[in-house]
Amino acid sequence: MNLQQWIDSVGPLDGAAMEAARQRQAMLAKPPGSLGRLEELSIQLAGITGQVCNSMDKQHLLVFAADNGVVAEGVASTPQVVTLQQTVNLTRAKTGASALCKHFGCGITVVDVGVKYDVPESKVLNRKIAYGTRNIAQGPAMTREQAERAILTGIEVARDTQADVLGVGEMGIGNTTTSSAVLSVLLGLPVEEVTGRGGGLSDEAFRNKKEVIRRAIRVNNPNPADAVDVLSKVGGFDLAAMCGAFIGAAATRRPVVIDGFISVAAAVCAARLCPNVREYLVPSHASFEIGYARAMEDLGLQPMLLLGMRLGEGSGCPLAFQILSAACGVMNGMATFDQAGINDDYLEELRQGDKFTVEKES
Amino acid sequence: MNLQQWIDSVGPLDGAAMEAARQRQAMLAKPPGSLGRLEELSIQLAGITGQVCNSMDKQHLLVFAADNGVVAEGVASTPQVVTLQQTVNLTRAKTGASALCKHFGCGITVVDVGVKYDVPESKVLNRKIAYGTRNIAQGPAMTREQAERAILTGIEVARDTQADVLGVGEMGIGNTTTSSAVLSVLLGLPVEEVTGRGGGLSDEAFRNKKEVIRRAIRVNNPNPADAVDVLSKVGGFDLAAMCGAFIGAAATRRPVVIDGFISVAAAVCAARLCPNVREYLVPSHASFEIGYARAMEDLGLQPMLLLGMRLGEGSGCPLAFQILSAACGVMNGMATFDQAGINDDYLEELRQGDKFTVEKES
Repeated sequence: MNLQQWIDSVGPLDGAAMEAARQRQAMLAKPPGSLGRLEELSIQLAGITGQVCNSMDKQHLLVFAADNGVVAEGVASTPQVVTLQQTVNLTRAKTGASALCKHFGCGITVVDVGVKYDVPESKVLNRKIAYGTRNIAQGPAMTREQAERAILTGIEVARDTQADVLGVGEMGIGNTTTSSAVLSVLLGLPVEEVTGRGGGLSDEAFRNKKEVIRRAIRVNNPNPADAVDVLSKVGGFDLAAMCGAFIGAAATRRPVVIDGFISVAAAVCAARLCPNVREYLVPSHASFEIGYARAMEDLGLQPMLLLGMRLGEGSGCPLAFQILSAACGVMNGMATFDQAGINDDYLEELRQGDKFTVEKES
Repeated sequence: MNLQQWIDSVGPLDGAAMEAARQRQAMLAKPPGSLGRLEELSIQLAGITGQVCNSMDKQHLLVFAADNGVVAEGVASTPQVVTLQQTVNLTRAKTGASALCKHFGCGITVVDVGVKYDVPESKVLNRKIAYGTRNIAQGPAMTREQAERAILTGIEVARDTQADVLGVGEMGIGNTTTSSAVLSVLLGLPVEEVTGRGGGLSDEAFRNKKEVIRRAIRVNNPNPADAVDVLSKVGGFDLAAMCGAFIGAAATRRPVVIDGFISVAAAVCAARLCPNVREYLVPSHASFEIGYARAMEDLGLQPMLLLGMRLGEGSGCPLAFQILSAACGVMNGMATFDQAGINDDYLEELRQGDKFTVEKES
């Protein structure tokens, strides 16, 4: 299928299943709404799968790795070779996100969509579009055809991943710069409102980063109404593939968890390309980066976790998976009001006549 | 041991272990601080246990159940017999919190410290102080001796529970009223700043609830400098035992998770009786009840989960346990910078001469 066919294949949620889930929640033995977002999630999951009761036991994180030519402008505090290094370490449960996946028994797939070097680790899925993007401060990151290929790659990797729920993370030095550029264009916001210090920049390097993003937008003049144009001109292979992964998860009717700043930028791209994708998104933690909140507003979402994390890699996803799984646990495990009565004769007796003296000491 | 001896037995955190944990965090392959509160938790855990690497696999929720005489004033939207009913259902994994415990494999102990009726279920630990408290709108909830006995009960139940981490929850119709009364006195705040609608009250019933709390404080005139006096006059057996559970967990050097509004009110009592307890507390979710935020400010804590939950029972604890466990997972599983290097010869070659043409297409 081509990109437009994939986009067209993403249907709305199943309203009847959601209504049935809502009714079941109302019958569970608790004050209405008292489980808050666990209830909302269970209803959303019903809409996604078409079933009232679900299981989210099989959890899988997709990590898309790529390099960004814009690091030549000094926008990153970390050497570029770290993309390669951590791409490999992600397959060895040695990085933050992969250690969390191992801890919780989540699967992880690391996909090279554009690392600058050959990756000497066969566990990394080789879907390289090119050896890094071009420098967006000087011209487009990639061709439109490459952007579409990267999006399709993300869609296909998501489609091919057997899991109840997917998460979308990344590894790519310089990708907070591209994410800020993409969000500035798509949300129509000044660069300073969507740009933070990334992995950690000095005041001067931070000023430079914002100037580089302004220049990239000026030089490339991307069309805000065309997310593929924006991704190809000021984005990256990681962002484009992540955008595709959100679409691919929705097309195969599975919930998909947003990690932090870069992940939410990719989710905004996906929602612009395919508005139905919004209904399949599940937030995780509140990112430190200032642009995160603006992107979440655009998607109408709020984070579920306040952990002050800013590592990336998809590190918020394994935690959010546990909350999703918990939402299934209460929906499937709790008694309804009908089932919650215990020893009815005894209770009836109590109701009728208070056979014990209240306040009697033991 | 008597109460004062228990209080005196709660020591400060182990500063040397915390410093060693801080140093290890700084060596892990990630930007400093990028795992946010997962890092802070791992350092806190080191201070509690005295070890840099910890495991929080054995998780246990303690639920203290009791009735509150103040329900005679119409402050609760749920019939009092529900305390008994849900106390039993908690042992059957049929309520919100217990379904979550079952889902995550956490242990649960349900303790009757003052249910109004005999509990026809042997799995509920019988530590009944009395058959419910007296009506605080007319006089003290209990005697001072009963309050001390309830606190000691909580301490001893916590001490006797084999687990790496404990959570503290409750079941007791009317206990948002007593919690608001206790917090209003201890924090020196007007009743309306710490009182919410509990399980769900009409506008009129809500006005009445606040008036009842004001009356309870006026009639009993508890001493804000004496938490035992406050608990005995306007508290409840559940609150007093929960206060004890926080002290008991700290005395046995284990982290202890606060659930929502009632749990945080009990934690404030524990911290007033025994300031060192603060260092052992771990927050979970942000409760809906307005007094929650004021109590958390008093403890210097912020919630980790934003789930709009207001069920009580300890339902936030199983979720927070997963975050604590995740903090151990990254501390124990991540590579240090020294260990994170991959294939050093290859990387060295790349560093020296960029053997691939950047931007070369695949």
